[in-house]
Amino acid sequence: MQEKITDILLAGCPADCSDLRYATGLSSSDPVVYCRKGGRQYLLVSPLDAGYVRRVARNAQVFSFTDFHSRAGSGSQAAERILGLLKKIRAAKVAVPHYFPLGLARKLEGLGLKIYIAESPLFPERAIKNSREIRMITHAQAAACHAMRAAWNMIAGAVITPRGTLKTGRQLLTASMVRERIELVARDCGCVCRKTIVACGAQAANPHEIGWGALRAHRPIVIDIFPRHVASGYWGDLTRTVARGRPPENICAMNAAVRAAHARALARVKGGAAASEVHNAAVKVFKLRGFAGGEKDGQRDGFIHSVGHGVGLDIHESPPVGPGANELAPGNVITVEPGLYYRGQAGIRIEDTVLVTRGGFRLLARFPYRFVL
Amino acid sequence: MQEKITDILLAGCPADCSDLRYATGLSSSDPVVYCRKGGRQYLLVSPLDAGYVRRVARNAQVFSFTDFHSRAGSGSQAAERILGLLKKIRAAKVAVPHYFPLGLARKLEGLGLKIYIAESPLFPERAIKNSREIRMITHAQAAACHAMRAAWNMIAGAVITPRGTLKTGRQLLTASMVRERIELVARDCGCVCRKTIVACGAQAANPHEIGWGALRAHRPIVIDIFPRHVASGYWGDLTRTVARGRPPENICAMNAAVRAAHARALARVKGGAAASEVHNAAVKVFKLRGFAGGEKDGQRDGFIHSVGHGVGLDIHESPPVGPGANELAPGNVITVEPGLYYRGQAGIRIEDTVLVTRGGFRLLARFPYRFVL
Repeated sequence: MQEKITDILLAGCPADCSDLRYATGLSSSDPVVYCRKGGRQYLLVSPLDAGYVRRVARNAQVFSFTDFHSRAGSGSQAAERILGLLKKIRAAKVAVPHYFPLGLARKLEGLGLKIYIAESPLFPERAIKNSREIRMITHAQAAACHAMRAAWNMIAGAVITPRGTLKTGRQLLTASMVRERIELVARDCGCVCRKTIVACGAQAANPHEIGWGALRAHRPIVIDIFPRHVASGYWGDLTRTVARGRPPENICAMNAAVRAAHARALARVKGGAAASEVHNAAVKVFKLRGFAGGEKDGQRDGFIHSVGHGVGLDIHESPPVGPGANELAPGNVITVEPGLYYRGQAGIRIEDTVLVTRGGFRLLARFPYRFVL
Repeated sequence: MQEKITDILLAGCPADCSDLRYATGLSSSDPVVYCRKGGRQYLLVSPLDAGYVRRVARNAQVFSFTDFHSRAGSGSQAAERILGLLKKIRAAKVAVPHYFPLGLARKLEGLGLKIYIAESPLFPERAIKNSREIRMITHAQAAACHAMRAAWNMIAGAVITPRGTLKTGRQLLTASMVRERIELVARDCGCVCRKTIVACGAQAANPHEIGWGALRAHRPIVIDIFPRHVASGYWGDLTRTVARGRPPENICAMNAAVRAAHARALARVKGGAAASEVHNAAVKVFKLRGFAGGEKDGQRDGFIHSVGHGVGLDIHESPPVGPGANELAPGNVITVEPGLYYRGQAGIRIEDTVLVTRGGFRLLARFPYRFVL
């Protein structure tokens, strides 16, 4: 049974807390206290911030810390002021998120407030994107495409040396050179990228390894770009795997399997579909093609992660797209990103970010699926 | 008495938690659990992250979630695995920061772990910057200077219209145009700016108002730029107040007072000095020059904030530089930013970011103090 959440309390900096950013529209590194009761929203901020916040946070009634009394030297001033606000708006018991700060919670409870941790998301509506949000994610995804194109150009333009490395002019082409180019292009699109993955060969068998050193010919290079649009805070997420020069047949077969899994999983995406249908479509392709995976030295090989995740103000957010029991809904923005990983050999992943619609999905940006450059 | 903190537990994403970023050197949006016991550091991460984290977090022993047992469906898997780690390293009682997530704390306590909230900072060494940190803050501060120069050029190059507005070509010069230019220049220096202040006249009487609309001649414009270096996470902080065309005499006197307060406060900065000496030097200048401040309609006017704050991985961090009882130490990086604010009239602030040394201070970047452009 879904719990019934009425009154909500949040505290933190909107720059570091997506729920706060979502609820208030603020993006600053200054602390705010947020409260929702009976559909009304309230903010409690420093007197230095009150004027500005009043001007921009139009859906909330804004109070200053100095509007509420606290005893000097009690060590619980913030908690006393929050309690002042809650008393004023007659909220006696509040739901807080699991990440609510422990110190503040203890002080509020010490002053007699009833706090309970919400089991379900406080803002379930975050999973259903409105047109502005879709535009912002599309912007970030377009930045990812520009950056991917720049990366492809670098790799495609490199010369294969007799040693099997890649040269651009007189320089060895390295993972960091490609990463820097990607991050520069994304920056010029108003986005910030961190931990961009440019991982060649066996490095990519580790899905979150960002990669290092010289890139090599005839080996798959996983390029995973997730830019965050600075102005709005929304993310994009795009992965392609390419090779400069054709890799051996077994690697090409692995790529073909990932490509097929990606297409079959995408084909299952639509409003009302079970997330597990999408995930299992990829699993089935891998099984049929002999990439079932398994355990080696206590570590798993093969398709070792969920087929996707929601994308928004967080890079990983609701809905999950894995073997779990949830359904997809129109307005969800999710990734579809099957991959295969074999330690000591290679990793391959293909990923798009899509909007779930009633009848299927819409790619938020199109980028080709070439494997050999 | 300083409490004795031995074993520490942190949990969160390094991208959103400066303590975690500082302790681990990681900057990702993937969750990590951090533990310190007896000078040794331990990390607990997802199996997808373990390989990468092992490669880059060289000062910590890295475990994967799957290294520790948890009961399926217990709803406390993360807590059970953390307890597994703590048991392995024989930590029976841990200090956590006040911002530790409440939900996780309750689950850990439910499993019998003793948790106490540290009263003092868990990483007091963050307030003393090493040479790499100083280089990174200097980089961000240089970006702020470049951006400030661009803003000055826009304002100095604008033509004063008969109506008292500013024109650049045929366009009215607005706060957002200057802000966008500032943020673009900072971006080209590898930094991100948010909430950059370009506030003209009475708007700036509110210290955190970012400003809007057409800029006007003969009125002070507060320009406060705080870029964050994307690669390292360190901030810079620089404020100048300028006017296009000379403002009335009372405003010029106000600016002269802020300039004098800034110089006198800076002159008090050195290792071993009380922070309050620096703050009070500014207060004294304002009093002597007749800008004592006071209350109007329950709101304070005059010099209404602390004279500065520490700068590092957080834009506001230790040490505070206000009327409190703390001392400055060599290696602190702090702002010195006295200001005057009068509602309905104007705000003026001048700010530099400096390194505290044994004998005084070093400006991390130099930028001129002109008032009339």
